[in-house]
Amino acid sequence: MAESVFLAELSWSAFQDKVAKNVLVFVPLGATEQHGPHLAMNVDVVIPTAVCERVARNVGGLVAPTIAYGYKSQPRSGGGEAFPGTTSVDATTFALVLRDIIRSLGSDGIRRLVVLNGHFENSWPAVEGVDLGLRELRRDGISDMRVMRLEYWDFVQRSTLDRLFPEGFPGTELEHASLLETSLMLLLRPDLVDLAKVPDDGPAKFPTYDVYPTPEGFVPASGVLARAHGASAEKGEWLMRDHVDLITKAVRSEFGL
Amino acid sequence: MAESVFLAELSWSAFQDKVAKNVLVFVPLGATEQHGPHLAMNVDVVIPTAVCERVARNVGGLVAPTIAYGYKSQPRSGGGEAFPGTTSVDATTFALVLRDIIRSLGSDGIRRLVVLNGHFENSWPAVEGVDLGLRELRRDGISDMRVMRLEYWDFVQRSTLDRLFPEGFPGTELEHASLLETSLMLLLRPDLVDLAKVPDDGPAKFPTYDVYPTPEGFVPASGVLARAHGASAEKGEWLMRDHVDLITKAVRSEFGL
Amino acid sequence: MAESVFLAELSWSAFQDKVAKNVLVFVPLGATEQHGPHLAMNVDVVIPTAVCERVARNVGGLVAPTIAYGYKSQPRSGGGEAFPGTTSVDATTFALVLRDIIRSLGSDGIRRLVVLNGHFENSWPAVEGVDLGLRELRRDGISDMRVMRLEYWDFVQRSTLDRLFPEGFPGTELEHASLLETSLMLLLRPDLVDLAKVPDDGPAKFPTYDVYPTPEGFVPASGVLARAHGASAEKGEWLMRDHVDLITKAVRSEFGL
Amino acid sequence: MAESVFLAELSWSAFQDKVAKNVLVFVPLGATEQHGPHLAMNVDVVIPTAVCERVARNVGGLVAPTIAYGYKSQPRSGGGEAFPGTTSVDATTFALVLRDIIRSLGSDGIRRLVVLNGHFENSWPAVEGVDLGLRELRRDGISDMRVMRLEYWDFVQRSTLDRLFPEGFPGTELEHASLLETSLMLLLRPDLVDLAKVPDDGPAKFPTYDVYPTPEGFVPASGVLARAHGASAEKGEWLMRDHVDLITKAVRSEFGL
Amino acid sequence: MAESVFLAELSWSAFQDKVAKNVLVFVPLGATEQHGPHLAMNVDVVIPTAVCERVARNVGGLVAPTIAYGYKSQPRSGGGEAFPGTTSVDATTFALVLRDIIRSLGSDGIRRLVVLNGHFENSWPAVEGVDLGLRELRRDGISDMRVMRLEYWDFVQRSTLDRLFPEGFPGTELEHASLLETSLMLLLRPDLVDLAKVPDDGPAKFPTYDVYPTPEGFVPASGVLARAHGASAEKGEWLMRDHVDLITKAVRSEFGL
Amino acid sequence: MAESVFLAELSWSAFQDKVAKNVLVFVPLGATEQHGPHLAMNVDVVIPTAVCERVARNVGGLVAPTIAYGYKSQPRSGGGEAFPGTTSVDATTFALVLRDIIRSLGSDGIRRLVVLNGHFENSWPAVEGVDLGLRELRRDGISDMRVMRLEYWDFVQRSTLDRLFPEGFPGTELEHASLLETSLMLLLRPDLVDLAKVPDDGPAKFPTYDVYPTPEGFVPASGVLARAHGASAEKGEWLMRDHVDLITKAVRSEFGL
Repeated sequence: MAESVFLAELSWSAFQDKVAKNVLVFVPLGATEQHGPHLAMNVDVVIPTAVCERVARNVGGLVAPTIAYGYKSQPRSGGGEAFPGTTSVDATTFALVLRDIIRSLGSDGIRRLVVLNGHFENSWPAVEGVDLGLRELRRDGISDMRVMRLEYWDFVQRSTLDRLFPEGFPGTELEHASLLETSLMLLLRPDLVDLAKVPDDGPAKFPTYDVYPTPEGFVPASGVLARAHGASAEKGEWLMRDHVDLITKAVRSEFGL
Repeated sequence: MAESVFLAELSWSAFQDKVAKNVLVFVPLGATEQHGPHLAMNVDVVIPTAVCERVARNVGGLVAPTIAYGYKSQPRSGGGEAFPGTTSVDATTFALVLRDIIRSLGSDGIRRLVVLNGHFENSWPAVEGVDLGLRELRRDGISDMRVMRLEYWDFVQRSTLDRLFPEGFPGTELEHASLLETSLMLLLRPDLVDLAKVPDDGPAKFPTYDVYPTPEGFVPASGVLARAHGASAEKGEWLMRDHVDLITKAVRSEFGL
Repeated sequence: MAESVFLAELSWSAFQDKVAKNVLVFVPLGATEQHGPHLAMNVDVVIPTAVCERVARNVGGLVAPTIAYGYKSQPRSGGGEAFPGTTSVDATTFALVLRDIIRSLGSDGIRRLVVLNGHFENSWPAVEGVDLGLRELRRDGISDMRVMRLEYWDFVQRSTLDRLFPEGFPGTELEHASLLETSLMLLLRPDLVDLAKVPDDGPAKFPTYDVYPTPEGFVPASGVLARAHGASAEKGEWLMRDHVDLITKAVRSEFGL
Repeated sequence: MAESVFLAELSWSAFQDKVAKNVLVFVPLGATEQHGPHLAMNVDVVIPTAVCERVARNVGGLVAPTIAYGYKSQPRSGGGEAFPGTTSVDATTFALVLRDIIRSLGSDGIRRLVVLNGHFENSWPAVEGVDLGLRELRRDGISDMRVMRLEYWDFVQRSTLDRLFPEGFPGTELEHASLLETSLMLLLRPDLVDLAKVPDDGPAKFPTYDVYPTPEGFVPASGVLARAHGASAEKGEWLMRDHVDLITKAVRSEFGL
Repeated sequence: MAESVFLAELSWSAFQDKVAKNVLVFVPLGATEQHGPHLAMNVDVVIPTAVCERVARNVGGLVAPTIAYGYKSQPRSGGGEAFPGTTSVDATTFALVLRDIIRSLGSDGIRRLVVLNGHFENSWPAVEGVDLGLRELRRDGISDMRVMRLEYWDFVQRSTLDRLFPEGFPGTELEHASLLETSLMLLLRPDLVDLAKVPDDGPAKFPTYDVYPTPEGFVPASGVLARAHGASAEKGEWLMRDHVDLITKAVRSEFGL
Repeated sequence: MAESVFLAELSWSAFQDKVAKNVLVFVPLGATEQHGPHLAMNVDVVIPTAVCERVARNVGGLVAPTIAYGYKSQPRSGGGEAFPGTTSVDATTFALVLRDIIRSLGSDGIRRLVVLNGHFENSWPAVEGVDLGLRELRRDGISDMRVMRLEYWDFVQRSTLDRLFPEGFPGTELEHASLLETSLMLLLRPDLVDLAKVPDDGPAKFPTYDVYPTPEGFVPASGVLARAHGASAEKGEWLMRDHVDLITKAVRSEFGL
């Protein structure tokens, strides 16, 4: 069996050896969510998994299986649940999954954890999951697990954004199925991108509030919230380099690696 | 974007077209669980995903993302939670995940579902998840979703088992990290098998009851419950052919495909 | 007040004396479930209670009140919830009841527990209930409770089954309201058996999968899954002797009694 | 199989015939709780079951299995959880059990239900359980189930209390393991009463508030809250007659029987 | 910033100083519930908050924010949920809120707590909330928090009731929107009382049982369960003096203040 | 009883009249959270309540009681739970409270709701609470409730921020106990502000990730995340005018008022 950076590709005994060396484990949080007519629905699984894989190689860590079903898509950040194929779970469900994974890894001896999120809406249920997981571990007598929790897109240089958006960055929330994600997918899985189908109906113009149920026309019909035109694998490469370099640096700094 | 049998590799609009044709969706249930020193811990993800993929091709269905964290491993069927790397969730958590997926797919218009299980301990929480999912859908006014639920290993011909176990089949429960799973992994992911590490400490001799906490020595130290010697990709091929053919046949029969 | 093997027939002070001697407590798990037109619906309460009573006498233990509402009946093992009178609870509900009982007994000082199941579908929620109960006790500082968990029907000699089924044992799952249960009820509560109503519509021919909602005709109309003809109190006696002897032996062995 | 007033002593087909006639079902709520050194711990099971049995005979109803594990005993009404043998469940657990029973009976066609409580602390979780059960049934399209919920001890004539307490009735809350319950047990199960052990340490003098954790000496050491001296089967007979007559009358009136 | 008896009107640093002196905290439990056509719906918030405020001044304690949404109103004690404006939560929700508050205050260092209830139906979910909160704290290593739990109306002298009800006190349960609450509101918030609208349709005549769904005419149309005529601020003053004096005395006695 | 914009200051019958006119209800979401040494802990209650009150007057709406216990404070946005006095609830608890309020108001006939949040961390549990509440209502046959959900601070003109922050706005997340909140409190409750205690230790310099447990020194010791110097009631007035005007406009637009 070859060496692997993926936890589940190890045997339990190989994993045990890693635990003995206080290995750092990454838990990527993904989703199955519409990303426009030009992208597959696994964008939020592919990207954070790829980032974790690269950072884990840099720091000698392991990547646990990516959670593939995320918290419910919201109209203003992901288009919302009404798009067919978006397959999501309730907040309590999501938090319990992460709680249980943390409890399980903690009882195995893992003391360094990075929860790396790739789906905007997961952010808060993930905060809760981490809190519940650490609470349970403390009650089981384990109080020395340290957890970093982050969104990969927050790790990018200002200069990179400037290169990507010469006319100004529209902001993270609208970056759904748009330039950044499309470029990263062109880098990672070009077979799952169809540039010919990039829509022209964006960018979304949202009010500063939510409305439920989602009104007709609230979300662009394509599900794409900002423009994806101009996406390229090269730009994906710029982004990926930032994500990996900056997260690697942060992880090293926090865990003294 | 190429055609794909994996739901999450489609765009939402491509998926919508499938829904309009009443596409059948497979939900593979996996686990991250020790499978002895000679197998990776993703056996229960790799095999049911592969079975689903093949059956889905046969019947024109789609495969949703595999649930990678299963219900807690039990000593008599999987070695138990004490093996490092086995990363599991509580029964309620597991059932809620499946409930939410079913509710989500049902509200998208999916009316034909196959829940295909690859981890013994998932069986009953999966029953609950299906029941809760259909209950919620009924309360949302959707009462015509039809769900098959199955364990892939129940689809094998007697003659195949006789060929595999000339001295008699030890039974499904002990088939953990043993001949069948090892052969299937040799077929599907030989890079995740290390035959040199197949242990000699089995087969497990369990009493007809559980004991908690698991006593010292209750489970073979290797985590392998029956013998894995003699496993081969060819035998994996025999099994896979049975699983795929018989499940295809059952699915066609149940859904009139 | 006479001595009693039933916990709830003792005063608290008498129970306290037993706890001081580290008494073993049995928790029987039952159900209120259809058992064909010829048997009452309390079969899964009567039998495990009777087994517990007899084993408890043998080992000087106590029998806690039987849980009378079980996990939801499944078509392939109990006929399913559609039969009127089958009155069941959700998996989480069942697990919480058992969790709470274990926590309550543990905080009273009980350290030896046997959870004896008489309803097939309870098996897995019972596993979860035991795990949750012990988890809570550990967090309350109690880590030395030891729990056995078993299905009574797994304690039978091969030779007894051969005597009962000269043409071959159809297997545990189909043993619902059939020869074994009918014989045991004839032994224990003949007033709750009406042999004249033993149906002829079995044995059930189930596929190797579940279908939800249960299709018309999936389950024999009588709710009886295998043949009950030939049942007798004498056969019930053979079975009961095996159950009691073998469980007594196992309990003695596990708890060093 | 003899006719029986107990639901679980019927076959499903006999029960089905009753349902077709709109049978009224009683669900007795009990507990396993200390009742002093002179009474068994099943007092709250024995009495409500007996009341239900008699009323059911009067009105042609059926008695479902008694819930044997009640909500947590409170110091001021039952002595509290610290007494060994008191085996109780959390409020949510109790409410879920009752919810599920009501949903299950409602889906069988039952439209008339009496929830008859025999354990003070069950009162409010039972209110919640009924509310949740009816809520679920409404969402399943069943809105015509009618439920009575009562404590049996509220059905007694003033004149009977005057006969029993010539010096004044100390009130329901203190009636734990005292004159009323002891008399009823002498009537119903004299084998579970040991009058020689009636303690002298009562009556309890409680403040008008709870304190947690329960302070030393808050509850009489015996667990008996008021005096049990003078209890007799004859007095139990007076009480039982009132309970049965008055509840029968109320049930007939509410359900037009 | 002025000194305040209300916890939330302090800065965190001022609160920290109080914690260092082992300050006693009051948690008032209220509701938003109909109180007849002559009273506002915040009666169960205004009164317990006012009682807490006064007692807290007496004993040097702090008053945490009042819980404004209570457990579901019941027909026999509050008129029931059908009255528009009654806005309530499920039992589990209520218990979890109180559990979390207790856990949060306990982890801050609070060791003396008074949970003071102003809404009849909150009583039992509050018992559960306290139990769950203390259970969690124990598991977090904090076992020395002491909690008093009380209903303010239980602190009144017999002589006061005799003065208020020369013809006899109808009892606590019917005291909903009636003489006592109306008088207290005239004292505390006369702007929220409209004596001209005091209805004449009471007192309610309830059976000794609940019926669900609530039958037509079960509850007086006004929502007032007993007579409110004769209410006055002066009578409110008599009551408030009793409540404050007697609760102050009990708190001092229990906490040795 | 005077007319009031606060729902709980109406009688049920006055509220009923409002419901008949399809009144819009505001639910303010608050918290009890540290806001530095110079502000009381009820900032997140005072401000959203005041905003709701003013907007409700503008549009003829009603303000339901403010939820006073919010979701757990996070280090990067509120300082975190470690500050004494911050008293918070779990995500599930918070969502259930909001779910129940929405269900309760919906069953009363309310069809227009504004959920106005004043505590950053409440945002996502509020999204979940709204979703669960509307889901329950739909299952109860009510599908025409429309809900706006917003954070009040998102309603401010760019020009106002420019006036307030001539050197550039540090961003919403750091605006905790800083210039904006301090100014608003000086306007609304100057008695709860102590400008002399405004700390100098900010602004916080957070990394772009969370760390759990919160490391020493991660959060400024004062709990203030950005500078509060320069706060004034006049600036509070500028802000309040924007919040009220812009939210009024949005509400009118969404609900066609």
